[in-house]
Amino acid sequence: MSVGEGNEAYGRKTFKRSRSHFADRITADGHDGWPVEPGRYRLVVSRACPWASRAVISRRLLGLEDALSMAVADPIQDDRSWRFTLDPDGRDPVLGIRFLKEAYDARESDYPGGVSVPAVVDVPSGRLVTNDYQRITLDLATEWRDLHREGAPDLYPRALRDEIDTVMAEVYEDVNNGVYRAGFATGQEEYEEACAGVFRRLETLSERLARQRYLVGGTITEADIRLFTTLVRFDAVYHGHFKCNRWKLTEDPVLWAYARDLFQTPGFGDTVDFDHIKRHYYQVHTGINPTAVVPLGPDLAGWLAPHGRADLGGSPFGDGTPPGPVPAAEAVAPQGRP
Amino acid sequence: MSVGEGNEAYGRKTFKRSRSHFADRITADGHDGWPVEPGRYRLVVSRACPWASRAVISRRLLGLEDALSMAVADPIQDDRSWRFTLDPDGRDPVLGIRFLKEAYDARESDYPGGVSVPAVVDVPSGRLVTNDYQRITLDLATEWRDLHREGAPDLYPRALRDEIDTVMAEVYEDVNNGVYRAGFATGQEEYEEACAGVFRRLETLSERLARQRYLVGGTITEADIRLFTTLVRFDAVYHGHFKCNRWKLTEDPVLWAYARDLFQTPGFGDTVDFDHIKRHYYQVHTGINPTAVVPLGPDLAGWLAPHGRADLGGSPFGDGTPPGPVPAAEAVAPQGRP
Repeated sequence: MSVGEGNEAYGRKTFKRSRSHFADRITADGHDGWPVEPGRYRLVVSRACPWASRAVISRRLLGLEDALSMAVADPIQDDRSWRFTLDPDGRDPVLGIRFLKEAYDARESDYPGGVSVPAVVDVPSGRLVTNDYQRITLDLATEWRDLHREGAPDLYPRALRDEIDTVMAEVYEDVNNGVYRAGFATGQEEYEEACAGVFRRLETLSERLARQRYLVGGTITEADIRLFTTLVRFDAVYHGHFKCNRWKLTEDPVLWAYARDLFQTPGFGDTVDFDHIKRHYYQVHTGINPTAVVPLGPDLAGWLAPHGRADLGGSPFGDGTPPGPVPAAEAVAPQGRP
Repeated sequence: MSVGEGNEAYGRKTFKRSRSHFADRITADGHDGWPVEPGRYRLVVSRACPWASRAVISRRLLGLEDALSMAVADPIQDDRSWRFTLDPDGRDPVLGIRFLKEAYDARESDYPGGVSVPAVVDVPSGRLVTNDYQRITLDLATEWRDLHREGAPDLYPRALRDEIDTVMAEVYEDVNNGVYRAGFATGQEEYEEACAGVFRRLETLSERLARQRYLVGGTITEADIRLFTTLVRFDAVYHGHFKCNRWKLTEDPVLWAYARDLFQTPGFGDTVDFDHIKRHYYQVHTGINPTAVVPLGPDLAGWLAPHGRADLGGSPFGDGTPPGPVPAAEAVAPQGRP
């Protein structure tokens, strides 16, 4: 995302996350005009962004790397938003564009909204298909099924969808978006309401996860992915930069072990770039960090410590298997790893 | 302090702490014209300020409450600096002034420097005597000896002064002032140098304190007071606001137990007002916290947990005794206590 984030948010009294503007779906039957096809689309992400990182993890778990290529934007946006300055000549090698905004413009000229990731772009036309961060991963899990790898998990199993949807709605409101409402609050009361909500929800989740290895059912689902992308950023950016500092993730034994368990599962930790995360938050949000100084901490060594969660039962991939290694071209640079 | 702190610091590339301007000493022999006399002077402090808090603690440990009265400034300064807005009609009841600056002006007209605490004011003339934060507590420990309570500890024992001075110099450079250099750094390199120095020194101190209960010798000395005033603020303000976030104090078992031990010793924790501390840092330094939002965290409950340090030997007050209860008029409001 970046719509409604960062300094733009400061004009408003209360932080409100923008709804995705382009909500076309890429489906097996192509009912929106965008049928699932291998090689046709490009997923544009930032590894800094928790909303985009959902898609990075889902794509890995489902083995969609060959079917759906991926562009990684520079964690530092400029006034034209997400840009491909990490690529040779500052251009995405597949789309040939320098700014994600160009794909938005190709879709709708003079589009007045913000430019956000995750975004899926139609490679032949260069047009944005969707930036619907709440929908993209669900469709990867369900509509892209024919292209999943052998042994891919079912991340959104039909029998559990009501429960998954309920948990995800609570996690979205209080945690995923709650940390942003706390961090971008311009008033004390607004901040306190959001911050208290973050920790109330985390405490409830901690109780739940003391009894079971994953949030819903006995395997990893979309609900775990969405909680993970906030937890993995918690101590690095939300604790200090967003003032969600009642305690660190590392101080809650259950949530910290749960997050480590997922981090150490192929498809999760191997997508995480703490360097991108920290530089993005601390350098882009100059409205709350005017010096743009990026902290040295926290110490990340603990992420690889044993988690002891296997005793709770369940199995990360159910009847399936873990994904293979990260494609070399997509490996996260060592300095970003713990 | 406030000289060279806060937003003023932003004009400079590197944060430099101002030297105290008024360095007269109050001594037993009165060689600077200011003899020790009971009731003659007033100590002006902010409970937010680590430099002033040294004097608040020393005064309690030495039992100087009756001999040297104390004025507590509002933790929130305005453009006239420290003010007595916590008192009825916004005036210090003894000095009759609204701003500490008035005592500075009475001492030197058109004084161009900043106004800092701790400050000692001569009550009869209303003139500032000293704002020499490095000297004030040493003189309380040595020059005010005739007025100490029975059983007062020797906080600056002659036989240990070389070692105490060495430890205090290292703690000052890397820790007491290191956190400020990190927090007020305007560039990444300057920040990293300071922050790394903070944690290098804390690690050395942690090794030292794993073997002995106090920093120097077997009893509490001035060196402990000076380390304590930074440690007690560490998680509340330095960790997040000043980006000293490699780890929290609570994550270093030795330093955390050492800090709790002191906190639970009469004369230390009973002087601490976390509410003043947090509001001062987060609301005054708008150059690094433009929203002035004060975080809800950290959870302070742990400060009263058992510390287990008595097994290391030593005795807090040597042959002396702990101070009695805090005078009712100086008790810290409950909301500021853990």
